[in-house]
Amino acid sequence: MTTKPLILVTNDDGITAPGIHVLAQEMKAFGRVLVVAPDKPQSAMGHAITIHDYLRLSKVEMMEGVEAWSCTGTPVDCVKLAVYHLLKGSKPALLVSGMNHGSNISINVLYSGTMSAAVEGAMESIPSIGFSLMDHRIEARFEHVRPVIRSITANVLDKGLPRGTCLNVNVPSEDNGTLKGVRVCRQAWGFWEDDFEARKDPMGKDYFWLRGRFTDQDHGEDTDTWAVANGFASVVPVQFDMTAHHAIAELNTWDHAR
Amino acid sequence: MTTKPLILVTNDDGITAPGIHVLAQEMKAFGRVLVVAPDKPQSAMGHAITIHDYLRLSKVEMMEGVEAWSCTGTPVDCVKLAVYHLLKGSKPALLVSGMNHGSNISINVLYSGTMSAAVEGAMESIPSIGFSLMDHRIEARFEHVRPVIRSITANVLDKGLPRGTCLNVNVPSEDNGTLKGVRVCRQAWGFWEDDFEARKDPMGKDYFWLRGRFTDQDHGEDTDTWAVANGFASVVPVQFDMTAHHAIAELNTWDHAR
Repeated sequence: MTTKPLILVTNDDGITAPGIHVLAQEMKAFGRVLVVAPDKPQSAMGHAITIHDYLRLSKVEMMEGVEAWSCTGTPVDCVKLAVYHLLKGSKPALLVSGMNHGSNISINVLYSGTMSAAVEGAMESIPSIGFSLMDHRIEARFEHVRPVIRSITANVLDKGLPRGTCLNVNVPSEDNGTLKGVRVCRQAWGFWEDDFEARKDPMGKDYFWLRGRFTDQDHGEDTDTWAVANGFASVVPVQFDMTAHHAIAELNTWDHAR
Repeated sequence: MTTKPLILVTNDDGITAPGIHVLAQEMKAFGRVLVVAPDKPQSAMGHAITIHDYLRLSKVEMMEGVEAWSCTGTPVDCVKLAVYHLLKGSKPALLVSGMNHGSNISINVLYSGTMSAAVEGAMESIPSIGFSLMDHRIEARFEHVRPVIRSITANVLDKGLPRGTCLNVNVPSEDNGTLKGVRVCRQAWGFWEDDFEARKDPMGKDYFWLRGRFTDQDHGEDTDTWAVANGFASVVPVQFDMTAHHAIAELNTWDHAR
């Protein structure tokens, strides 16, 4: 008799988001499930951690057979509290983050709390996957995503992941028709063109809301933006070594004593 | 007659931190200086941006000849507000972030608000540098860092930076003796072993403070941890393409239709 693997589930939309319930349900088929997720939306929190404030954990009822905690911190705080407090330093067999309500393709991997939780898992040598749906609505439909979650989870549990990497999985909205399959991709060269909407408060003082428009500037067909635009789920292996190794030689030609 | 270049200065320790004053002073020798920095400490905010709340900007007096604004948001919010609101989409010639009170070597590049501001600058095609001092104290001494700031700034203004990269510069504390020079490095393989200190509030309810111990697990002599431990300032070229390109071939051997 073997013990079922322990699977840590988190997200950035908060513990009440439908996406994390789908993910926790699917994980029950693979192992014992521990959910530690933010008590409120933490989208776009990137790799933020809480160092100037304390954190709290509250046990919550989520679904049968699942131990679930809500946390006052960021997605990365959730991973740290799960591993170092609840699990006392022992590592789960798998970490899954999401299912995010909204896209995390291209450059969004850096802003995303969903993906930062997965990157934190990779730093802890835990095989980790972030799942995102290209539909940010609370009422987004996830049924077509379930087979993708199962297939990728089975592969990662069987084969592990290369050292220092995790997976960024994005799935087109059900509105885009039948899913054509899965493509392994690189992160597309795309950016936000931002814009701030200035408003005046009742005292006449300015305040600003961030708005932005994502623009794909990549013409490759091996990117995550291409894959999702063409009906595939994209899988990008993501690493936390941010060194631009190709730039080291050039910087060594500089006069650093000028 | 040429117009002096515009230099955007930000940080994560907040606009009142001594480190940003040193950096703004040094930048005055290179160009016109615009400071947009958080109104409170924003350390370890990573690449977080504010999407669920509004932002405010307040003009502040900082030093003669410098236009300065404090912002209610994160370091990355500061960069976005500077570029898209104050500069109306025109890009400064250079972005410098810091001088951070505390180390941003190795994996800390991902947690650091200082470095995330520089990474955001790189995304905007602005040559960008994050400067950090290996001394987190508010009374840290910065005099020995000034020549490093000048030399690297002069190089970046002259030569630019490779596409999609920025620089992560870390300088040992003055307590460690005379600086031996500058080393171009890769990000070391090092991690935090975390720990949460559990306390009880007056109502008897638990709360937790994050503590951690950084461990360098890298034996290379080409890393940032080696450089600063051996008396050099480290310069790591950092990229925002987080794709683990080397892992794509392996993931393509998987059965994605299982």
